[in-house]
Amino acid sequence: MNSKIKFLKEQLKGLNLDGMIVSNPINISYLIGIDSSCEGILLITRKEVVYITDSRYIEAVNNVITIEDEIVVNDVRSVSKYDYENFFMFCENVGFEENYVTYSEYKKIMHTYKIHNLVETEKIIEKQRMIKTEEEVELTKKACEITDECFMYLLNFIEKGMTEKEIALEIRRYFMENGADDISFEPIVASGKNSSMPHAVPTDRKIEAGDIITIDFGCRYKGYCSDMTRTIFVDYVKEEYKKVYDLVLKNQQLTLKEYGEGKNSKVITNMVVNDFKVNGFDLVHGLGHGTGLEIHELPFVNSRVENILKENMIVTDEPGIYIPGHFGVRIEDTVLVGKGEGEPLTKSDKGYVVI
Amino acid sequence: MNSKIKFLKEQLKGLNLDGMIVSNPINISYLIGIDSSCEGILLITRKEVVYITDSRYIEAVNNVITIEDEIVVNDVRSVSKYDYENFFMFCENVGFEENYVTYSEYKKIMHTYKIHNLVETEKIIEKQRMIKTEEEVELTKKACEITDECFMYLLNFIEKGMTEKEIALEIRRYFMENGADDISFEPIVASGKNSSMPHAVPTDRKIEAGDIITIDFGCRYKGYCSDMTRTIFVDYVKEEYKKVYDLVLKNQQLTLKEYGEGKNSKVITNMVVNDFKVNGFDLVHGLGHGTGLEIHELPFVNSRVENILKENMIVTDEPGIYIPGHFGVRIEDTVLVGKGEGEPLTKSDKGYVVI
Repeated sequence: MNSKIKFLKEQLKGLNLDGMIVSNPINISYLIGIDSSCEGILLITRKEVVYITDSRYIEAVNNVITIEDEIVVNDVRSVSKYDYENFFMFCENVGFEENYVTYSEYKKIMHTYKIHNLVETEKIIEKQRMIKTEEEVELTKKACEITDECFMYLLNFIEKGMTEKEIALEIRRYFMENGADDISFEPIVASGKNSSMPHAVPTDRKIEAGDIITIDFGCRYKGYCSDMTRTIFVDYVKEEYKKVYDLVLKNQQLTLKEYGEGKNSKVITNMVVNDFKVNGFDLVHGLGHGTGLEIHELPFVNSRVENILKENMIVTDEPGIYIPGHFGVRIEDTVLVGKGEGEPLTKSDKGYVVI
Repeated sequence: MNSKIKFLKEQLKGLNLDGMIVSNPINISYLIGIDSSCEGILLITRKEVVYITDSRYIEAVNNVITIEDEIVVNDVRSVSKYDYENFFMFCENVGFEENYVTYSEYKKIMHTYKIHNLVETEKIIEKQRMIKTEEEVELTKKACEITDECFMYLLNFIEKGMTEKEIALEIRRYFMENGADDISFEPIVASGKNSSMPHAVPTDRKIEAGDIITIDFGCRYKGYCSDMTRTIFVDYVKEEYKKVYDLVLKNQQLTLKEYGEGKNSKVITNMVVNDFKVNGFDLVHGLGHGTGLEIHELPFVNSRVENILKENMIVTDEPGIYIPGHFGVRIEDTVLVGKGEGEPLTKSDKGYVVI
């Protein structure tokens, strides 16, 4: 049996669950290695693991799954009412994904399967996904490598007079033509005053001399996401920018040191919150988030929840300061949590980069 | 009160519902005119209409909502447990969106509000959205106009040796730089054999002489989507393509005549299914779908469900024939359903277009 499903079955056992209905396509993609665009449902029963999908995907799925996976693939048209009622025949408690399944889908599950007790699983698979396997780390490293190369390319590409939108489009083009599957999210290119909005959408504003530009971007490689932000300067660096830049960078680097086994995400965040406060600024968003098959996944690093970091988690480190109506600075790496400290997987220059 | 909410309140009354919790951001966007990226919840209570959102969106929302809308905007931080419990104080039955709300959100609603009876509303707002207002028709017309212009542009742009991916990227660039908000979905550019897959993803395949190319694309203008497909030819039209093209076009045009008030979507689809069958082909996907704030919305035109078309619905008309391993042809317009027949809002040439 494939090792991810084996691990999940152990977990289910510990929770006294005899089976699980997996509906979230990203969790299915994680467990059995198929593309997350496939539509289907994965049933983990006492006897077997069954993936039910429709004829559009059967061929693609059979190309990926091997005998060692021990997964039965069924065409939805060949599964009878009787089959559905029998999947969980001798199961007392069966888990489902209460954070993904809609209320009407929940009712359909209750109606379709004969399940004595349908149990909430509290993101059990999302939690399993937090700790990356060796292969997942390698794929993320590759996504980060392409992202670093894209940044190098952009430094030559960006010129005064270009619009933010043009630069954002070029990031997409670069990724598509240089080995990535896709962008991992819509790139943010925020120049001048626009950089003061953490979630700025690229506009028709043209790059000018003296500008500060925040570029937040990433790609997807074989499903796995990278996420990096660099704040760069055009022609020269204004003095007012330097003070803020230095403070953000200092905290970004301190945080890197904290991304080690056993560290508390809330404590790390509060360290940055306090240092910003002492200097008269606020941290208005989280300090980081997990990346993997999704660009935002568990664990989240902010001051609301306490998560304990573990080796081989992959988490962003992205402090930022935003001065409304003026400018903003954010510096972000995708980071592999280590035994002692974090290893940045994105490695682009974090000194003052002037183009 | 704004006319869309007034209409909804009438509907709710007819269903004996005293209020409704609207969670789907697209439905909220439709009802109160704010951007669908805003995160919040809309409560329709006996006394008032309340939109609860967080500080990130308050300013943007207040810029859009007028006094005539009679909508109270609340910052989520200022709403107490007591307020939540009182919103539906004198309501017996309150509707919710069972097809959008997850099971865990459902439980949270039950916990947060004091609601006697939480009732499924069966896509009541999605159904209201089917019939477009004059303004919605105008915005869709504009999106279609930009799409037609993009097609004209592409006929000059596409050259032998270009890849499908390059063309798809150029479609995006064109829309972004020519007045659209965005693409309305990832463009399909499928050339040669690739055209035999209805949902082909653009590849690195290069355009060659003799190729058939299916281009399925659209944009979004002030939120409203267009959707058009044209199948074009490079240098010359192979005889084998002509027979299939003519059959698809004939059915696309017959369907246009059928898109009138009172017509049955299943009957229309079966007309095409039968004509394809007589000629030795199958219709492997639906004949059309509504467009609006979403690229795929109600009503759907296929042989599974019976929908009665009504004036001022906007529905695609997109028959296609796909010969596995060889080629495919699809021709699609975005169509305004009329009293008697449909009016295509996309107007690009449907004869043999040879580039």
